Amino acid sequence: MQLAMNGHGPRHAQLAHALRAAILEGRLRSGSRLPASREMAMQLRLSRNTVIAAYEQLRAEGYVHARVGAGTYVSEVEPARSRPARVAPVAAPTRYVERLRALDFSILRRGGDEGARWDMQIGEPVTDPALFTAWRRTLGRAALYADPRYPHSAGLPALREALADYLARRRGVDAAPDEIIVVAGAQQGMGLVARVLVEERDSVVLEEPHYFGLRWTLQTHGARVVGVPVDDAGLVVERLPAVSAAKSPRLVCVTPAHQFPLGATLSLARRQALLAYAAARRCWIVEDDYDSEFRYDSEPLPALRSLDRDGRVIHVGTFSKTLFPGLRLGYVVAPRGLVRDLVAAKRLHDFGGPTIEQAAMARFIADGSFERHIRKASGALRARREVVLAGLAPHAAVEVVGAQAGMHLAAWLHGFDRARCQALIALARTRGLGIHSIAPHYLRPPRRSGLLFGYAGLAVRELEAAMQVFGECMRALAPSRRRSSELGRGQVLPFAPARGAKGKT
Amino acid sequence: MQLAMNGHGPRHAQLAHALRAAILEGRLRSGSRLPASREMAMQLRLSRNTVIAAYEQLRAEGYVHARVGAGTYVSEVEPARSRPARVAPVAAPTRYVERLRALDFSILRRGGDEGARWDMQIGEPVTDPALFTAWRRTLGRAALYADPRYPHSAGLPALREALADYLARRRGVDAAPDEIIVVAGAQQGMGLVARVLVEERDSVVLEEPHYFGLRWTLQTHGARVVGVPVDDAGLVVERLPAVSAAKSPRLVCVTPAHQFPLGATLSLARRQALLAYAAARRCWIVEDDYDSEFRYDSEPLPALRSLDRDGRVIHVGTFSKTLFPGLRLGYVVAPRGLVRDLVAAKRLHDFGGPTIEQAAMARFIADGSFERHIRKASGALRARREVVLAGLAPHAAVEVVGAQAGMHLAAWLHGFDRARCQALIALARTRGLGIHSIAPHYLRPPRRSGLLFGYAGLAVRELEAAMQVFGECMRALAPSRRRSSELGRGQVLPFAPARGAKGKT
Repeated sequence: MQLAMNGHGPRHAQLAHALRAAILEGRLRSGSRLPASREMAMQLRLSRNTVIAAYEQLRAEGYVHARVGAGTYVSEVEPARSRPARVAPVAAPTRYVERLRALDFSILRRGGDEGARWDMQIGEPVTDPALFTAWRRTLGRAALYADPRYPHSAGLPALREALADYLARRRGVDAAPDEIIVVAGAQQGMGLVARVLVEERDSVVLEEPHYFGLRWTLQTHGARVVGVPVDDAGLVVERLPAVSAAKSPRLVCVTPAHQFPLGATLSLARRQALLAYAAARRCWIVEDDYDSEFRYDSEPLPALRSLDRDGRVIHVGTFSKTLFPGLRLGYVVAPRGLVRDLVAAKRLHDFGGPTIEQAAMARFIADGSFERHIRKASGALRARREVVLAGLAPHAAVEVVGAQAGMHLAAWLHGFDRARCQALIALARTRGLGIHSIAPHYLRPPRRSGLLFGYAGLAVRELEAAMQVFGECMRALAPSRRRSSELGRGQVLPFAPARGAKGKT
Repeated sequence: MQLAMNGHGPRHAQLAHALRAAILEGRLRSGSRLPASREMAMQLRLSRNTVIAAYEQLRAEGYVHARVGAGTYVSEVEPARSRPARVAPVAAPTRYVERLRALDFSILRRGGDEGARWDMQIGEPVTDPALFTAWRRTLGRAALYADPRYPHSAGLPALREALADYLARRRGVDAAPDEIIVVAGAQQGMGLVARVLVEERDSVVLEEPHYFGLRWTLQTHGARVVGVPVDDAGLVVERLPAVSAAKSPRLVCVTPAHQFPLGATLSLARRQALLAYAAARRCWIVEDDYDSEFRYDSEPLPALRSLDRDGRVIHVGTFSKTLFPGLRLGYVVAPRGLVRDLVAAKRLHDFGGPTIEQAAMARFIADGSFERHIRKASGALRARREVVLAGLAPHAAVEVVGAQAGMHLAAWLHGFDRARCQALIALARTRGLGIHSIAPHYLRPPRRSGLLFGYAGLAVRELEAAMQVFGECMRALAPSRRRSSELGRGQVLPFAPARGAKGKT
């Protein structure tokens, strides 16, 4: 009989493995007697102790048994069938999985994954080696003093205190440390909010357009997502479901500081109207404060939460933009009445976040490193933004919106129908430039064609090259025969929009 | 009028803050004109640029507006009501929250939280400073090379490969890297499994007793939890709901390597019967492999998953026991047919785990540090276990079970009813010793009194002191008048169990 030793681990373990396989495959049948250890050792040129150890292990596992004075026998063991070569796909076991399978994850490609030399995907972090050197130092130190035991579910107290202080100083948010819950990024924060507040078939309002990751979370929880349009002053609050409607929305999700992805700032009047709406309807507001720290024309605006007197606003923040997304750290500032349930949900989800990172983050905020990095990154982003704006300016068909803040800007392509926009994206891809449609961020396909330009992940020189390529692609595909660069200032042009394209509404 | 500068941040931000508050509180009414910047600067002894910056900020936020040539005016702003002093508790917004609020989290006290000098709480990590020095080095290095972008949702490829290799070598698990999903600890792994596989009102089998954290996860997902007893060979598979029953369980959750908390090893015959049951009923098996690496009398047994030929076993592992729970790292080895859905659920939950820790963990496994630590910790645990066993041996009322593996052992207290057991725990607490009842791990209150002794978190000397205290408490409270230490060997004793206590069944 063949006994194949697999070469992994000590010899007695290898022998036990080989005998086990022989028993399970039926090559050693139940009731058969194994050779005496001395004999087996000679056959296999192993030491007798090795054989004894292997037999002992198999006995402990129940594969063999010893009969006193008579030797070692193979036990009654069901022979294994070989594993099927192909596994049939599993029918969706739950409604949750049905909803999960309906999502299109193709948008989640990471920058550069398709080999683009310059990928202007949104969500890329600012590339700054100094940050990782600083983070390494802080993290390494935290590894020595952080508590190795199960974490506090709501977050490390030192981090909650540092966050309370930071939020008061920079975002006008007046929150006690025990109203703050540390989470594994805004995505988990939103998941917890959905789990706690949204029942299947509840209706939930999203801005249209909005961040697709938030929509996914709500849809997989079974919410009915209602899109409400945005304009230059953010969410059009007057278009929220009327107070007389049969069922109030459970949640209204907004990005007041910098509407995602179109960039408007929610006006003060709209903020107050939204808070009044939530108080009257007893619904909750989620304030996604994803990139408020990067603002180029004025100070960051105080958060919506700072105006909330009814305990209706759930403020969600993340370090994915200010530091980097691989960190997986964010926070939820909860209304007092929801803190207990959100902390319990976090506890059930994962017992709390990793302690060393939380301790490092607390130190990073408290010693000023975090805000120093924000200032530095803000300067870098401003310069990168300028390059993109300069690259887009010559193109008459391009209308930039929402460039006053953040790490990306949106641009409408006037006169581009969907096919032409796709052709532009495809052409750019062949030349190493990744540019991305705004369409996946809409609940319903948008009537206009637009692109999002993420500029955080590329240096100024790379962006200059990227915008050069963009210009070439535009000149190859722009709908007008006469190129924008040839136009005299003030010249009146006959304008013939492409089929299906609409102007700004 | 008073303008209180809060001393936080630059002066223009402080002035803006103070003016904003005055507007929201109605002290500056809408339509009123602000002093000209020069005048305001003189009044407040600030530079004029400071005032201009503050006005500009408030204008951007919509609190004031400029009329050309006429100055700056307060806009129409809803005055803020003061925040209510006490927030009324929120009625449970969802069924999930109703279930969440029904849980008793008091068991989650962390070791030492109540001031016990020696806390024998389960779940404490092995205290080894060398581990943290090694981890610091690996983590710091990973901070420099890990990808800062959004992580791979299923886990860092290098870590999945290192895990596949480790699981094959140490646990007999033959899994491809793409069948492994990295999660934030076993708790998150179980949460994902429940979300994907369990519909509200589905029935789910747990061992009785079992790990309370798993029960919580299943109950909050709305599962009906069915307890099936265990004996010396683990789960009594014959007691699973009969094949003729109207509704199969969705999941059967087991701890085959070391039944939690009673310590039995699931026998080979039972393993095969369980796999056959799952194949026939098309239900899923969760194998919680929480502490299999620490085994004192034989090699660790191969995982149940290694026998699975039908793709029914979901193997869940954690680094909380082998390293430390503050790490929040674990993994799920999924049957091929469930991989896609579990990865999608992980993506929706948090987009994936933190990258630096995953990169460090991959390195820690690949360079042998992980298994070196396991060997060292195993030696330390063996010595600690000996101290506890020696401390329990003199007490005739104590019957130790499940001590051949792991980081804790269970002990029945014969002749102790619930009140006497509680008195023992309370007395020990007054003397600085934390010992813990087995009862919270039962679905139904157990008929016997028992304790769990976690010994991982205390050094040998501490455990010696702890067991000394335990002995004093036992002598003070043991039901028999004659103390065990006074008994002659072989002496026959009249045995009168206390009311309500039952012998081993």
